[in-house]
Amino acid sequence: MKKIVKQDQDVIKQHNKLMILDIIKNKRPISRAEITKITRMSATSIGRFVSELCEEGVIRETELTSSGVGRKAIMLDIEPGALYTIGVDIEKKRISFGIMDFSETIVAHHRVEHKALAGTPAETAALICQEIRGMIARQGIPFEKVIGIGIGVPGVINYERGVVQLSSTLGWKDVAFAELIEKELGIKTVIDNDLKVKILSEYLYGSAKGSNKTALIGIGTGIGSALIINGEVFRGGSNSAGELGHTTLDPNGNLCECGKRGCLQTYIDENALILEARRVKEVTDVREVFAAARNGERWAKEIVSRTALYIGITINNIVCMYNPDTVILSGDLVENYREIVELVEEHSDQVIWEPFKGKFRVIPSELRGEAIVMGAGALAMQHFAPLSGSWSGE
Amino acid sequence: MKKIVKQDQDVIKQHNKLMILDIIKNKRPISRAEITKITRMSATSIGRFVSELCEEGVIRETELTSSGVGRKAIMLDIEPGALYTIGVDIEKKRISFGIMDFSETIVAHHRVEHKALAGTPAETAALICQEIRGMIARQGIPFEKVIGIGIGVPGVINYERGVVQLSSTLGWKDVAFAELIEKELGIKTVIDNDLKVKILSEYLYGSAKGSNKTALIGIGTGIGSALIINGEVFRGGSNSAGELGHTTLDPNGNLCECGKRGCLQTYIDENALILEARRVKEVTDVREVFAAARNGERWAKEIVSRTALYIGITINNIVCMYNPDTVILSGDLVENYREIVELVEEHSDQVIWEPFKGKFRVIPSELRGEAIVMGAGALAMQHFAPLSGSWSGE
Repeated sequence: MKKIVKQDQDVIKQHNKLMILDIIKNKRPISRAEITKITRMSATSIGRFVSELCEEGVIRETELTSSGVGRKAIMLDIEPGALYTIGVDIEKKRISFGIMDFSETIVAHHRVEHKALAGTPAETAALICQEIRGMIARQGIPFEKVIGIGIGVPGVINYERGVVQLSSTLGWKDVAFAELIEKELGIKTVIDNDLKVKILSEYLYGSAKGSNKTALIGIGTGIGSALIINGEVFRGGSNSAGELGHTTLDPNGNLCECGKRGCLQTYIDENALILEARRVKEVTDVREVFAAARNGERWAKEIVSRTALYIGITINNIVCMYNPDTVILSGDLVENYREIVELVEEHSDQVIWEPFKGKFRVIPSELRGEAIVMGAGALAMQHFAPLSGSWSGE
Repeated sequence: MKKIVKQDQDVIKQHNKLMILDIIKNKRPISRAEITKITRMSATSIGRFVSELCEEGVIRETELTSSGVGRKAIMLDIEPGALYTIGVDIEKKRISFGIMDFSETIVAHHRVEHKALAGTPAETAALICQEIRGMIARQGIPFEKVIGIGIGVPGVINYERGVVQLSSTLGWKDVAFAELIEKELGIKTVIDNDLKVKILSEYLYGSAKGSNKTALIGIGTGIGSALIINGEVFRGGSNSAGELGHTTLDPNGNLCECGKRGCLQTYIDENALILEARRVKEVTDVREVFAAARNGERWAKEIVSRTALYIGITINNIVCMYNPDTVILSGDLVENYREIVELVEEHSDQVIWEPFKGKFRVIPSELRGEAIVMGAGALAMQHFAPLSGSWSGE
C-alpha cells in the first residue's frame, strides 16, 4: 500500500506537468486540444505546461498536420535528442550496447567480445566504460545528455543496491557493479537480472505488447523465468523471483552444478542435452544433436523430444504458479531450434493442467538478441528520465 | 501503472478524510494533535474532518487519556459498532462463520455441518443465508449495518465476477456463488480462493504480521499456495496463481485425479500418504499412519519422512518462484502433526537452493482454524468499508 502523501499545490502541479509529458510521449504527435480533452484540465493550464516543456527542450512543436475535418493543428512531439540512455547486455562471451534516445529508439549499436570468466569484474567494468565513452563520442552526443545506464546481467541481482550477488555465468559474487560504472563515468546506473530486463523489453516493444500478465521462460545454458504484471516486473522479496532452473523435480534425480539433486535445469538446458547425447556419441555442442535429429537419427530425435516434453512441463509449472495470459519462450535453445517449439505444442495436451488449457498462449520471443539492450535502455529511462509514470494509455 | 487521475478539490478532500479515518483505525486511540503531526495538515482541517466522521458515527471520542508529560488529550477511536462484515469459510463437511466489527474483532462465531458433495450449490447458499440471518438476529445487530460478506472457497475462483470456476472439494463448476448470496440477503458479497483469504488473514492478524513478502503453503486433502506482497494478494492473470499442487514433478509419475501424471500433490497430500501406506497396511486415514510412526513402525516412519522431504522440495520450489521472506506452513497435515515440521527442517539443507539458504524463515500457521473466517471478514471490510486504503503505517 502507498505511504501517506500530503497533496499540496506544488506536488499537484509537478504531477500534472509530468503527466502531460507522459501523454505526449505515448500519443505523439498530439495537439494541445487533444491533451485538454484527455486530461480534462483547462486549455490555459495545458498551454502553460506545454510552454514550459518546450522551453526545457524536452518537447517540440512539429509542422502543421491535418486533424479531422480539414482543420489544421500544431502538433506536439517529444524531442528525441532531449536525453539519452545506454542499454548494456553482458553475456559470457560478449557485451552488447545500444544508445536509446528519448523516443525510445536505439540510435546506435555496438558489440565487443570479452571473456568474463578470464578477467575480474573491475576489468569488465573498465571495458564497458571505455566502450560507452567511445560510442557517445562517435555519435556526437553531449555527454551530459546521457542521463542513465541500464545493464542486464545473468544471475541473482540486488536491484535496489546495484549489486551482482551471484552470477555463475560470469563467475561473479557480491560485486557492487552499478557503483563501479557510476564512479568511472559519472552517469547514474541501474542493473537488473537479464530475464527481468528481457521481459520488460518484450512488454514494451515485442511480443508481449498488449498482454498484461506475461511470463517469460529463458532456456539456454541455464533456465530462468520472469513475470510482468501490468507493466511491473515481479521481483519477490529480494529480486530473485523466477529462479525456475533450481526448482526440484526429483530429490533423487540428476546432480546439478548447484550441488542439489533433481533441479529442472539438469533435465532441460543445453548442458543436459549434451550430457544425455554423450551416452551415445561424443558431441561437443547442441548443434550436433539437432543436426542428428534433423538427419533422422533416433537417439537424437529421442533427446529433442524429451527436451520438448520437459519444456512443456516447465510451461505447466510456470502457468500453475504465475497464472499468466501469455508465455514467451526465449533463449538460444528455442530461438535457434524452432522445431522444438512445435514439439512442445504436441506435448501440451499431456502436460498442461486442465483448468489452464486454452487460457494462455505460448509465443516465441520477438526481439531475440536485441531484447536485453532495448530493455536495459528502457529500464534506465524509467529510472532516470523525468516522467511521472502515472499515465500509460487510455 | 495507474490510469490518469485528474486531481481536483473534492477528490482531495474525500481522500484526506478517508486517510484520517485509516489513521484512526490503525493507530487508535489517537489525539487530533497526533493526526495533525502525521498528516502535516492544518489543525483546522483535521478538526473539521474529525467532526464529520463523528457525526457519521464511524469514530468517537474516548475518555481523557494522559499523553506524554502529564497533559490530557481527548483521544479518538473508531466506533466498533459502526459497521460489520461476515466472514465465511466453506469446507467439504462444515461451514464456519464469524461476524467482524469495524475494529476487526470477531464478535460472534458459528459453525454448521453440511455435505457439499451431497447437495447443490444453491442449497449450500440457502443454508449460508439462513445461518447468517440467524447470527445477525441473535447478535442484535441492525441488518443494514452489515455492509458485506466475504467467503473463502477451496478451488479456482473468478474473484472479480464472484464465480467458483472449479472446486473439486465441493464438486462445483462455474457457480456464480456471490450473486446467489447477494440476491438472497441483499448484502454485497465477495468470494475468493481459501488460501488467498488465509494468507490475507495471516498477514493482517497472524504469523505474517510485519512480513511483507509472504508465501503460504496449504497441505491437506490437496496442495495449494498463496503469496502476499506488501499487503496485496498475488493473483496472476485470472486469480489462479499458486496452483502448486498441479505443478509436475515427473511426467511418468503418479497419476493424479486431474488426469495428468506426476502432479506434486500425488506425492504429498493426505491421499498420497494413505495410498502409500496401503502398500503395507489397510489404513483409512492419516491418523493411523502418524500413530504407527510415533509407535516406531518403520514403514510409517518411512512414509512420514518421505512426506517431509517432499514438503521441503515444495518449500524450495515456492522460494525459487516467489522469493518470499517468510513461508507459512498450513493445512491439516502440518497443523495436526507438528513432528513433520521438524523433519522438514532436517531435510532443508539438502533441498533448498544455496543462494536462498538463510534468506527466509519457515513458520507454522498461527490462526489455524480461524484464519479463513477472519480473512474473509477482512476481505469484505477492504472491499466494502469506506476506507481510502492509502495509509498503512508510518
